[in-house]
Amino acid sequence: MVAASTPEGKSTRVRRIGILTSGGDAPGMNAAIRSVVRTATPLGIDVVGYIDGYVGLVSGSHRELDDRAVGNILQRGGTVIGTSRCPEFYDAEVRALAADRMRSDEIEALVVIGGDGSFRGASEFTREHRIAVAGIPGTIDNDVWGTEETLGFDSAVNTAMLAIDNLRDTSESTGTNFFVEVMGRTSGAIALYTGLAAGATGVLIPEVENDLEGLASRLQRALQRGKRSHIIVVAEGDEAGGAFGVANRVAALVDIPFRVTVLGHVQRGGSPSARDRIIGVESGALAVRCLAEGGGGVMVGMRNRQAVLVPLEEVVAHAHPEPELNKLRLAIEVAG
Amino acid sequence: MVAASTPEGKSTRVRRIGILTSGGDAPGMNAAIRSVVRTATPLGIDVVGYIDGYVGLVSGSHRELDDRAVGNILQRGGTVIGTSRCPEFYDAEVRALAADRMRSDEIEALVVIGGDGSFRGASEFTREHRIAVAGIPGTIDNDVWGTEETLGFDSAVNTAMLAIDNLRDTSESTGTNFFVEVMGRTSGAIALYTGLAAGATGVLIPEVENDLEGLASRLQRALQRGKRSHIIVVAEGDEAGGAFGVANRVAALVDIPFRVTVLGHVQRGGSPSARDRIIGVESGALAVRCLAEGGGGVMVGMRNRQAVLVPLEEVVAHAHPEPELNKLRLAIEVAG
Amino acid sequence: MVAASTPEGKSTRVRRIGILTSGGDAPGMNAAIRSVVRTATPLGIDVVGYIDGYVGLVSGSHRELDDRAVGNILQRGGTVIGTSRCPEFYDAEVRALAADRMRSDEIEALVVIGGDGSFRGASEFTREHRIAVAGIPGTIDNDVWGTEETLGFDSAVNTAMLAIDNLRDTSESTGTNFFVEVMGRTSGAIALYTGLAAGATGVLIPEVENDLEGLASRLQRALQRGKRSHIIVVAEGDEAGGAFGVANRVAALVDIPFRVTVLGHVQRGGSPSARDRIIGVESGALAVRCLAEGGGGVMVGMRNRQAVLVPLEEVVAHAHPEPELNKLRLAIEVAG
Amino acid sequence: MVAASTPEGKSTRVRRIGILTSGGDAPGMNAAIRSVVRTATPLGIDVVGYIDGYVGLVSGSHRELDDRAVGNILQRGGTVIGTSRCPEFYDAEVRALAADRMRSDEIEALVVIGGDGSFRGASEFTREHRIAVAGIPGTIDNDVWGTEETLGFDSAVNTAMLAIDNLRDTSESTGTNFFVEVMGRTSGAIALYTGLAAGATGVLIPEVENDLEGLASRLQRALQRGKRSHIIVVAEGDEAGGAFGVANRVAALVDIPFRVTVLGHVQRGGSPSARDRIIGVESGALAVRCLAEGGGGVMVGMRNRQAVLVPLEEVVAHAHPEPELNKLRLAIEVAG
Repeated sequence: MVAASTPEGKSTRVRRIGILTSGGDAPGMNAAIRSVVRTATPLGIDVVGYIDGYVGLVSGSHRELDDRAVGNILQRGGTVIGTSRCPEFYDAEVRALAADRMRSDEIEALVVIGGDGSFRGASEFTREHRIAVAGIPGTIDNDVWGTEETLGFDSAVNTAMLAIDNLRDTSESTGTNFFVEVMGRTSGAIALYTGLAAGATGVLIPEVENDLEGLASRLQRALQRGKRSHIIVVAEGDEAGGAFGVANRVAALVDIPFRVTVLGHVQRGGSPSARDRIIGVESGALAVRCLAEGGGGVMVGMRNRQAVLVPLEEVVAHAHPEPELNKLRLAIEVAG
Repeated sequence: MVAASTPEGKSTRVRRIGILTSGGDAPGMNAAIRSVVRTATPLGIDVVGYIDGYVGLVSGSHRELDDRAVGNILQRGGTVIGTSRCPEFYDAEVRALAADRMRSDEIEALVVIGGDGSFRGASEFTREHRIAVAGIPGTIDNDVWGTEETLGFDSAVNTAMLAIDNLRDTSESTGTNFFVEVMGRTSGAIALYTGLAAGATGVLIPEVENDLEGLASRLQRALQRGKRSHIIVVAEGDEAGGAFGVANRVAALVDIPFRVTVLGHVQRGGSPSARDRIIGVESGALAVRCLAEGGGGVMVGMRNRQAVLVPLEEVVAHAHPEPELNKLRLAIEVAG
Repeated sequence: MVAASTPEGKSTRVRRIGILTSGGDAPGMNAAIRSVVRTATPLGIDVVGYIDGYVGLVSGSHRELDDRAVGNILQRGGTVIGTSRCPEFYDAEVRALAADRMRSDEIEALVVIGGDGSFRGASEFTREHRIAVAGIPGTIDNDVWGTEETLGFDSAVNTAMLAIDNLRDTSESTGTNFFVEVMGRTSGAIALYTGLAAGATGVLIPEVENDLEGLASRLQRALQRGKRSHIIVVAEGDEAGGAFGVANRVAALVDIPFRVTVLGHVQRGGSPSARDRIIGVESGALAVRCLAEGGGGVMVGMRNRQAVLVPLEEVVAHAHPEPELNKLRLAIEVAG
Repeated sequence: MVAASTPEGKSTRVRRIGILTSGGDAPGMNAAIRSVVRTATPLGIDVVGYIDGYVGLVSGSHRELDDRAVGNILQRGGTVIGTSRCPEFYDAEVRALAADRMRSDEIEALVVIGGDGSFRGASEFTREHRIAVAGIPGTIDNDVWGTEETLGFDSAVNTAMLAIDNLRDTSESTGTNFFVEVMGRTSGAIALYTGLAAGATGVLIPEVENDLEGLASRLQRALQRGKRSHIIVVAEGDEAGGAFGVANRVAALVDIPFRVTVLGHVQRGGSPSARDRIIGVESGALAVRCLAEGGGGVMVGMRNRQAVLVPLEEVVAHAHPEPELNKLRLAIEVAG
């Protein structure tokens, strides 16, 4: 476990913490919220939930979260305390206002569930105002440095995979090829894992340059072998212009019947998978324990399927994690 | 049970029948294929499956379907014998060619699983060539006259509903409104049932003129009451231009954050629901019994949850069934 | 639509109605509760929910149900107002107490969602105390006279079917036969529909005498043909003693490897299917409209996929609906 | 990556390998089979599938597996080549017979997908007969030393969790407590992960002594706080006698209404989760590459979400992995 930096001057006993969810919602956020409350309560720590992310932090809008408030939410998608994007929080004056409100409300520490944008704000906030913060990576994109898994990623991959299982029924029945766009503006993680799990013939991600000629040749060879139906998974941020862009370019190279499907926000929702619920439970518990012991300035990452603390400064100092190119090669090799 | 017309000159004993699936694939088609084979075998009737619908009928491309060939297919989406659209079959000469092939292959009768386009071809075919035909309505659109339920409709509605359940997680978490496009170029049945089942605030179908002002007013009033997240279900054939068209027009009338999701072909696939499997089992069995008794020129409809025979001529003589306006009103009333 | 009997002396304007769920919980109950509230509100009728069924009615324990209280419950299994079995309500003195409480709380009419046991109590109650009652059949067993479909039946059949789909993977992989017990103490409807949908080799229901010798012979013949894995669906109330009883008797007649699985209460829960949500929406709306117009003494049945009113007296005067023997024969014929 | 031991005297070029699945079937086995074939084919290696595990190896019963044979199996539960338990393979003479058959059939190496029992046989076999073997851990129990994840575990946990989500609907609606038995005769991994993911109040596993008094006290305190419905997850191998045994002992200590549900073989089947499909793809590819390079005597483990080679001797030399006691404590802490 990485040592957590302890903000100086911190009272030895935390009595009240806030929690917020920020950025796009992700399955498992509620599991983490529940775990934060359930871990805090026996330690004598009260928890308040800020409404709609940093927006609520800035305006002071929050509600008490006791055991009952988090009953029966473990299995629900989304976030019961709301979330939003709040670019204002990149403004130091706005952060100062939020810190003042927290102090006047006697809320001593903060759990932030969100992506790296949310953590950049949180990192500035804790540095400037010495309010302890523990981050929990919650984003379906799995693009946060310092953790192998983010809350919501496993659920999103399963949702996208099941949607493609459906498409394959039509593909096999009619010989139609599908170009399927999954989420991921700058990260190809969902596309890559979905492609592997759904048996895609091609996977196109933003982090590497497309080899559309190679893909077209493979489709051509498969046609000659009599395999007529293929699934191509494209991350929305792919430089060829998402699934429509890729489909048009490929169709200019090889003559195949095709359709384009954009899975869209369906990938964000739904009851979280077992993995995401467990990550939520483990992350929430460690975040509270860290804050209760006077720690802060950390993110709870998952490494080797265990929750560990990672300095928040390191997280925000790094770009996104590297794409797993070995898995990308594998996806092509087993495509058949 | 409606009396089935018996093609004259028919031998009293049918020994070999063909089956084909035509048009868009629909969950439950495999259940019907299995039922046809399982019912025919003990009657001493062999079954062949034509590959890719009327295309296979015309070219004579088929394969034997015995008990083993239909083992373990009941639960699979799509159709194991392939399907396609075959406009050539509207040409009488092409139909004559198909009839010749059937005779030379000693295939005496035909089961056609498809929508009303497929039945128009089948109706001409049986009239011209005195080859007995039994139709089974298989289309997710539920737009065939003479039956209350078509194979695939219940599955498609459940798939669309579950996708919207996912979207609602994001909608509730972020206050985003979703305009969701479901399938249905000329029929609003999927939109209507999905809207009722998913708790949509509005449902827009091709058969009735849109009241976008009314929808906008309701959204406005709901906003004032504090309800910020809504789902609007739009059939793809809606005259305002599908979900994108409706969203733009509504957004011009009321200021709300929104996104558009086009569910697309995901609705066609997936393991069939219990209802669609049971319809497949009942329809397939009745189709074979009818043909075995020298009947033909019929469609197997579902009325009052029972399989019944309907003259194919009547089916093709009618336009689509009327939209269920009482359900449309209900959807609006309970939207809240 | 059957004419509803109107309790005499009823004020022409209903202002407040109660709703309760009784007996075993069933998916779709929440959809009906929501529909009752959403239909009542624009009519100026307040709705209160009695807690835990007749127990709450007798003790006067209830809570207000406004639009917000029924937000986001459409898709949830179970019942948000709780349910229980309350044999005390068969006692006339207890019913008199409940009627007094309703009057003192100024609750003028009652919606009862439950099975035929619940309706017997409701029928006595309305007859004795002239408080209008509208029943909605809510039970997974589909064993209520006067309706073709009860709330929860379609969901339970789908849940049982999907569980058997899972078992079939093991059955096909290992050659193990499964005797699967589904719910239904006196009704074989779940067993019959699940058996048809899951491709069972045998279906055993309480309403007909078992032909275990016939089943054993079919298994023997199938073994000789090389088909080694079978699913036998047994209703819990089958006279041979549920799945364990049937399995032991069959295994004494034919030598096959087998396992017994009792699906149990898993069948009661889960997000309701589209069909059950729609039944809930339609039934709830009609129940309120009937009460609002001064009607009562009715049950809202589904006939031909439309909500209709049936006199409650007729419902309780009849035994359970007859089992669908034609479907039972069909299940055996297509078992292969 | 651990260095793989290379059996001496091995020809430098492998042309034909066999694959078998052994022990209980697990979701993801088909993904691994497909990956083995798809990886082998471009390397010029033919693959045969032994029917029903070691039984087929001993009898020489196998079939060719080409690209087409493994098409469209990625998403299916179970194993298309069958599996069985084969205690005879612990007999050295039987293994010698199997080795002779492999040689006469010119099958040079073997992929074994199964649990540690299967690997013990495989380890003896490769040591005695110098036929290269690569194991892939395929068991829902996640109880194989040397890997963090086995094929099928994630799917089984998700299946059990979803079943409990259903039970919770009834539990919350009626106040009934459920004791749920999940699979795991000697391993509590499924129980532990399912308990965490499903929000269980208690988790009882075979590896630690039960604290039923502690559990009863917690239930008592929860009752006093007004929380009336609980889920207790019990591994089948728990020393108190599975869920029935635990339920009876707890009910003797605290007075609560309860039911027992035994999930049974439903947990083994179903379409594999994304995680299990990806493990199958990665493991199958690495197994073939290892054998193609002349390696053997290895198991393909997952460590840190990457496929790695582990000497088979080490795997069989170790007892089961330790239970994750920190997760067990966590499950109790957040139970609320």
